[in-house]
Amino acid sequence: MDHQSVPDMPAEIIPPATRLMALADRFQLKAGGELHRARLGYETWGRLSPARDNAILLLGGFSASAHAASNADDPSAGWWERMIGPGKPIDTDRWFVICIASLGGCFGSTGPASINPATGQRYRLGFPEVSIEDTAEAAVQAVRRLGIAQLACVIGTSMGGMTALSLLCRHPGLARSHINISGACQATAFAIAIRSLQRQAITSDPEWREGYYSRATAPSAGMRLARMLGTLSYRSIEEWDIRFGRTPIGRERAVPNPKASFAPEFMIETYLHQQADRFIGRYDPNCYLYLSRAIDRFDLGDQTGGDIMAALSRAAIDQALVIGVTSDLLFPLCQQEMIAEGLRRGDVATETLRITSLRGHDAFLADFEQFGPPIGRFLTSIACRQPDCANA
Amino acid sequence: MDHQSVPDMPAEIIPPATRLMALADRFQLKAGGELHRARLGYETWGRLSPARDNAILLLGGFSASAHAASNADDPSAGWWERMIGPGKPIDTDRWFVICIASLGGCFGSTGPASINPATGQRYRLGFPEVSIEDTAEAAVQAVRRLGIAQLACVIGTSMGGMTALSLLCRHPGLARSHINISGACQATAFAIAIRSLQRQAITSDPEWREGYYSRATAPSAGMRLARMLGTLSYRSIEEWDIRFGRTPIGRERAVPNPKASFAPEFMIETYLHQQADRFIGRYDPNCYLYLSRAIDRFDLGDQTGGDIMAALSRAAIDQALVIGVTSDLLFPLCQQEMIAEGLRRGDVATETLRITSLRGHDAFLADFEQFGPPIGRFLTSIACRQPDCANA
Repeated sequence: MDHQSVPDMPAEIIPPATRLMALADRFQLKAGGELHRARLGYETWGRLSPARDNAILLLGGFSASAHAASNADDPSAGWWERMIGPGKPIDTDRWFVICIASLGGCFGSTGPASINPATGQRYRLGFPEVSIEDTAEAAVQAVRRLGIAQLACVIGTSMGGMTALSLLCRHPGLARSHINISGACQATAFAIAIRSLQRQAITSDPEWREGYYSRATAPSAGMRLARMLGTLSYRSIEEWDIRFGRTPIGRERAVPNPKASFAPEFMIETYLHQQADRFIGRYDPNCYLYLSRAIDRFDLGDQTGGDIMAALSRAAIDQALVIGVTSDLLFPLCQQEMIAEGLRRGDVATETLRITSLRGHDAFLADFEQFGPPIGRFLTSIACRQPDCANA
Repeated sequence: MDHQSVPDMPAEIIPPATRLMALADRFQLKAGGELHRARLGYETWGRLSPARDNAILLLGGFSASAHAASNADDPSAGWWERMIGPGKPIDTDRWFVICIASLGGCFGSTGPASINPATGQRYRLGFPEVSIEDTAEAAVQAVRRLGIAQLACVIGTSMGGMTALSLLCRHPGLARSHINISGACQATAFAIAIRSLQRQAITSDPEWREGYYSRATAPSAGMRLARMLGTLSYRSIEEWDIRFGRTPIGRERAVPNPKASFAPEFMIETYLHQQADRFIGRYDPNCYLYLSRAIDRFDLGDQTGGDIMAALSRAAIDQALVIGVTSDLLFPLCQQEMIAEGLRRGDVATETLRITSLRGHDAFLADFEQFGPPIGRFLTSIACRQPDCANA
């Protein structure tokens, strides 16, 4: 294929406050490849203390950028706006918070939508296989570059919960505590299937063109289907029924192509379309494919010959809080129970919190009342172990 | 569009033993249209008794033909082979069993893949809107044509459970008893969403061509995605994990296009592809769209100004058995509980059976041990109310 003839694809979408840090020039990837002149996108809130002992690393989910909350450089709301800020559960008057964007994504860290310095063209499918562990290693480089010898806490949500476990087990002692939210040590068959169908929706779209789509001819129908299916899986069956039931679309509501055959008729359909509308054009399809596959391939046991419990017991932290949600279809509660069990075997004082919510896997983004207070309490408890804590 | 230039689409797939019965020449449809010279596909097992009082009507699910079991004209296994036959739970030594194919499908009853007698061309999207109630009315015509004044039992599975309720509530007294299996009075928001995405997968495939696909250029990628998503929803999350876990695809296994980018890697993915392989080319895409939408639009309360309980209480039968499955994602247990409650309000002696199974919505097709005996017992109990019953 003549790459020169392909117009530029949707560019990377780098939030205004996201800073870019150069990674080691030849960044080795778990699957065997390497990245040249790769970079990591990150944002920070609060101030690093003189003792450099108040840093929290935040690792987000599949579609999360580093813009977790508003800050001076970008007053727009972040994906965890209610959680991070002065006086909030992750209190930036006390903590220095770093959030990084995953490698393989399109929010600033190097991925398939980035320019390959060797060719001057976007990587597209020429990007090497990227893994959850690679993001963990990149995060470790960033932490060290910021002059932090030990993190007070690593917080991981969803896919970021996988990244956090990978980091902790590969770098014992790098953190003192951990909060794992709706995370897992590996994907279930059902979650693999749901993501596999999303990838298939994209790659089945003729406009995908083996990754050589352009801005004018992007695989938007495939991305739409993929995101709608993703959205459906992020909440619970019960929530959809309670929120939308069988409510028909009002005549006044705009729906995509309402006169088309088999157009949406129920509010639940319109809602999924609207969520997809917000997403298409803001996430690169090739990045979607790479990161989605990385989640499926991740297995914490890879580090220990398949023994997940052995891997978990390597996390040399003092305290952990592991949170799961009763209605989570993608990262079911038994997976958080496994994390807690493994951490306890490694003598980590582990608190588990089973949240009863209809909001499924996305509850941590939607159900602030249930997540905010326990996260705040946990962070207060680890702060009070420090000698300078007023509450100690 | 020039219809003449479009080659014939995949023909209707009429099982060898399926007989075709002409419906009333101008068959009125619930949505307002009418069908001319429409026909209904059906199969039978056993013999109608001299008193014509031993007939059971069986109404199947979305993708079920009338070939529910093997018979003299077609020895191939039917979709409920273990349930129907001499000495089986639906004992054809005792009962005369009639199974019909749904209107709007492609298994013999008139649908979008049938020839429109007015044009000599297949209906495609020129087919009028067809509803669950229309199949119920067609079934009633068939029953009467076969000389049956009253059915001993109406059995409905999945979508057929909707059809059965519609029939019973519209024709009080037509049946003496009812078995409803994983049925519902209306679809939930989640089930609508799952089916809506399946329809979108088909209509997003450029090869669908607004229904004017040909045998050479059928929307097979869309049908593949649709069927894979359907299959995923027919079982339970737990079953996928127990059956497949994270087992990778063996090198020896054939997978579609294994060298393709983002090709399947896990057994769960291959399994879904294999199930789709069996389905594509055996189900007409336009029929898929019409019947899928008919399920979403069905609401038993349409007969009673929205009052489902009032509709259910109209079913003037003596006895009912309502079966649901704990892990059913599409027709959840609360829907079968609603059916039972409504029937009881109409003074129907209603037994409910809550089956604990990992096999989800499809349990009635897969978990014979749990469904066979109670169905057999129920039918024995209604047989013994007849004066000539040896066990009476």
